[in-house]
Amino acid sequence: MVTTLRALRGRGTMGLTELAARAELSRPTVEGLAEELLSLGWLAEEPPETGRMGRPRRLFRFRAEAGHVLGVDIGAHSVRALVCDLEGRVVGRFSTRVRADSGRADRLNAVRDTAAAALEEAGAGAARVMAACVGTTGVVTAQGVVRLSVGLPEWTGIDLAAELAGDLGPVVLVENDTNLAALAEQWTGVAEGVQDLLFVLSGVRTGAGMLIRGEVHRGRRGMAGEIGALPLVGWHRAPSHLAGFGGLPAGTPPEEAAGLALSAARSGDPAARWAVEQYAHDLAEGIAALVLAMDPDLVVIGGGVSRSGDVLLEPIRRHLDPLCLEPPRLAVSTLGDQAVVLGALRHALNHVDAGLYDIDAPFPTPKDS
Amino acid sequence: MVTTLRALRGRGTMGLTELAARAELSRPTVEGLAEELLSLGWLAEEPPETGRMGRPRRLFRFRAEAGHVLGVDIGAHSVRALVCDLEGRVVGRFSTRVRADSGRADRLNAVRDTAAAALEEAGAGAARVMAACVGTTGVVTAQGVVRLSVGLPEWTGIDLAAELAGDLGPVVLVENDTNLAALAEQWTGVAEGVQDLLFVLSGVRTGAGMLIRGEVHRGRRGMAGEIGALPLVGWHRAPSHLAGFGGLPAGTPPEEAAGLALSAARSGDPAARWAVEQYAHDLAEGIAALVLAMDPDLVVIGGGVSRSGDVLLEPIRRHLDPLCLEPPRLAVSTLGDQAVVLGALRHALNHVDAGLYDIDAPFPTPKDS
Repeated sequence: MVTTLRALRGRGTMGLTELAARAELSRPTVEGLAEELLSLGWLAEEPPETGRMGRPRRLFRFRAEAGHVLGVDIGAHSVRALVCDLEGRVVGRFSTRVRADSGRADRLNAVRDTAAAALEEAGAGAARVMAACVGTTGVVTAQGVVRLSVGLPEWTGIDLAAELAGDLGPVVLVENDTNLAALAEQWTGVAEGVQDLLFVLSGVRTGAGMLIRGEVHRGRRGMAGEIGALPLVGWHRAPSHLAGFGGLPAGTPPEEAAGLALSAARSGDPAARWAVEQYAHDLAEGIAALVLAMDPDLVVIGGGVSRSGDVLLEPIRRHLDPLCLEPPRLAVSTLGDQAVVLGALRHALNHVDAGLYDIDAPFPTPKDS
Repeated sequence: MVTTLRALRGRGTMGLTELAARAELSRPTVEGLAEELLSLGWLAEEPPETGRMGRPRRLFRFRAEAGHVLGVDIGAHSVRALVCDLEGRVVGRFSTRVRADSGRADRLNAVRDTAAAALEEAGAGAARVMAACVGTTGVVTAQGVVRLSVGLPEWTGIDLAAELAGDLGPVVLVENDTNLAALAEQWTGVAEGVQDLLFVLSGVRTGAGMLIRGEVHRGRRGMAGEIGALPLVGWHRAPSHLAGFGGLPAGTPPEEAAGLALSAARSGDPAARWAVEQYAHDLAEGIAALVLAMDPDLVVIGGGVSRSGDVLLEPIRRHLDPLCLEPPRLAVSTLGDQAVVLGALRHALNHVDAGLYDIDAPFPTPKDS
C-alpha cells in the first residue's frame, strides 16, 4: 500500500496502468491495493474517462483533503499560522500582532487564537489536524521544551508541546525557528534541492539553522548554530549597529529600526551606510565561523533584513569572503517573514509522511472519515 | 544472499537453524543461498559437528580471508600502513620515517614502499586488496585530489587517487586525516556508538574532523572543520606556545617540542605550565566555535598531545566550558598515533561492505579465488 500511495502522491489523477508502472507492481495487484486505500479513505476515485474504446478507465487520486497540517511561527511581535492540506496547498492563514513584552500566558493565548482563526478559515477544526508544528526562538529540546530563550519574556523552560497539545491537535511538534526557516528554503525557497544548507536569520536578532544531508541538524542538545554565544565573533553586537543608527526618528520601535537604517543606506545616507558596513562586518564573522565549521552547499540570508538584500549582500560578501578558505555560495531569502511558518508546515507534513510511509507501523486513519 | 551474508558476518561459525533465524528466512531458502555463497567463495563450510543425534549439523562462516583492505596514514614525519582481513583483524603493518621537508616524489615512494611492506607481512599482494584508503592532511576533494595543504611540501594539487591507483590496488580512496581519525574513534576508540562526533587533532598542527549521524561530514568542498582559517579564534597560533616554550634544549625537532613542553608542565615547571595554559586557551577558542556550530555528542582530543591528556584536559575544559552555552562532553583519544591509519582501514572496509550489501549491484568477486 505504501508503494502505491507513494506512486500516486503529488501527481494528480492517475489510471491503473500508469500507477502499476510507477509502483513497479502488476496491474491486478495495484488495483487490489488501490481498492484497499479507497476503503481506508486515502484515495478517491474520479469519474472514469469516457469516449474511449474498451472498458472505462478507472482514475484515482490521493485524497489531499484526508487531513490538514498546521504551522505556527511564534515571533516577538507577531504570531502567524498557516493550514494546508496533505499536498501542501495552503487553505487557511491568520496572523496576530503581539507586544514584544507579552508574558507567557498572553503569548500562548495569541498562539491558540491565531491557530483557531487559521483553522476556521480552512473550514477545519483541531480534530482534523494530523500534525501541528510550532516554531519558536531559543534552544528547543527533542521533547519540545524551550530550554533557553533570550528573545521572549518568560519563555525559558516552557513546555510548548504540552501547553498546546489539546488546542492545536493530537501531535504538536516544537522546533527552533531558524531550523524551520532552513527547511522552508529547501522546500519552496532559494535552496530547492540543497542538501547542506546554512540559514542565517538576521534582523533584530541573529541566529542560524542548518540542514545536513537534507535534514535539520539540531545537535545533541538542540544547540547547533548558536555561534552567537561566542563573543570572539560579532553576532552579539551586530544588530546594535542598525538599531543604534543615529538618523532614526525618536521613538522608532526596535523592530523597525533595521529596515529604516537599510532604507537610508539605500538612499545614500553616509551614517546609515556606515551602520550597514559595521553590521555586515559583524554578521560576516559569525557566518564565516559556521561556513568554516560545516562547509555548506549554500548560505541563505533571511529574516527581517532579507527585504534589503540589494543593500546588504555586497558588503556581507566583501567581509565574508576573505574570512573563508573559498567564497561560499550566498543567496538572500525570498520568503521574507513567511519562512518560519512555511517551514513549520513542511515539518508537520514530513511527520505525516513518515507515518504514511512507515511500513512497520499501522496505517494511519484519515481525519475526515 | 545479502541478507544471509549480513546474518553471518562478524559472528563466527553458524549452523543453518541459527542462520535462518537471523536472516528471517526459511531453512531451505537459507541453505540454498549458503550453497550459492559457498560456490562464490564468500562462505566457507567447516567440518560438521559430530557426536550428536540425527544428521550432522552443517556449519558455515564468512570468509574474512576472501580479501584484504589497506589503510595508509601519510604524515609529515612518517608513513604508516595497516592491512586487515574483511572482519577487520590486522594481519600486516609497517611504518617508515620520512623527512618533514621531503618533496612529493620522495613521499609518494615512501607510501608505496610502506604499503608494499605491510602487504608482504600480510602475505598478500596488491591484487588481493579489495579497497585501500589513504589519509592525508589538507583539503581533499571527493575525487581524491589534495586541493590545499599547508602541512606537506609540494602537496597542494596532488591527485593521490591517480598517483597510487596501480600500486595500492584497484580502488584507492583518499580522505582527510582528521575525518579518518574521527571514524577510528567511533569504530574502536573512545567514541564507540557516538553519532555526532567532533575530533580535534592537536599537536604540531591543529585540525578537526567530524561525524554527523554516524558518517563523515566533509562539506561541499571537503572543507568542513577548517575553523583554523579564522584568525578570530586561536588555532593558528596555538601550536606556537608549545613549540616556542623556552625550556627546550637547543635543536629540539618541532615534532618533539610539544611532548617535551607537556612533560615539563607535568613536572611542575612554571614556564611550561604557562605555555600549556596558553595552548589550552587558544585550542579552546576553536573548539568552542565548532561546538557552538555543530553541538556534537562528544568532543575527542587526539593527535600528538593526546598522550598528555592528564596535563591538558583540565586546562582545556577550564577555557572551553565558559565559551559554550553548556559544557560539551570531552574525552582524550586512546588511539594515539594509530587513529588515522585505523580510520583509513575502517573507511576501506566500509567501501567493501557497501559493495557486498548493495542489492542493486553485481555481487563482488573474492580476491583470492
